[in-house]
Amino acid sequence: MTVVLSDRVRDVITAGRLAHLVTLNPDGSPQVSLVWVGLDGECIVTAHMAAWQKVLNLRRDPRVSLSIEAEGRDEHGLDHYLVVHGRAEVVDGGAAPLLQRLAEVYLGPGIVFPGVDDPSLGYVVRITPERIGGVGPWAP
Amino acid sequence: MTVVLSDRVRDVITAGRLAHLVTLNPDGSPQVSLVWVGLDGECIVTAHMAAWQKVLNLRRDPRVSLSIEAEGRDEHGLDHYLVVHGRAEVVDGGAAPLLQRLAEVYLGPGIVFPGVDDPSLGYVVRITPERIGGVGPWAP
Repeated sequence: MTVVLSDRVRDVITAGRLAHLVTLNPDGSPQVSLVWVGLDGECIVTAHMAAWQKVLNLRRDPRVSLSIEAEGRDEHGLDHYLVVHGRAEVVDGGAAPLLQRLAEVYLGPGIVFPGVDDPSLGYVVRITPERIGGVGPWAP
Repeated sequence: MTVVLSDRVRDVITAGRLAHLVTLNPDGSPQVSLVWVGLDGECIVTAHMAAWQKVLNLRRDPRVSLSIEAEGRDEHGLDHYLVVHGRAEVVDGGAAPLLQRLAEVYLGPGIVFPGVDDPSLGYVVRITPERIGGVGPWAP
């Protein structure tokens, strides 16, 4: 069920817009937080310096969804947005270099993300996309 | 567990920014779509002209979360955003007048939302807030 990301979808993911990331709490309720996202091949990647609730949730239940607001509107005047449903793998370490790479996109070129110089720290979440939705040229 | 919305939270909800609405599918996976939101007293309200998946989901499981990007950044440079977790009640009818009210906020003053002149159509979702999160002056 893995889907290949189109160029248009890849453009939205790498445009420096925040992703609304949804994981599932132990009681099945949604957990929501906004994160920086990037691409690593066909995976969407996020970096986390600590084992936040979302990281713990994804270790237990890999189902994850994210939504990103995008440029443009459809013919009904509705704003474009991207939704990706997928499965997450939590990898130990590697948060620092990814946060630094994403800081250049989200905060600005040349900006140094503070306190993240040890590449063994934190977690990288690798999301394999399984279904694309939303409103826009990528919608089903 | 109902929470009273602060003025700052109410300002974010009524600012004309899209809400990323999360409901739960029958298999427990998250369903995500972007919606217009408004306030009706202490409830957050959304309008839907048809029984979309999110409406069906909320009839079965009233747990709902929504996130909205907000103005400003915190002291670490992270963008402010609001998360509201709550319980939804789906009310039959009333979508048209609410969509018209929200169109004036989201599309512009005086804009007439097309094809919504029958007040008996559609559904209104009334969300009772139970927990506030995110990044900003409203965060726990």
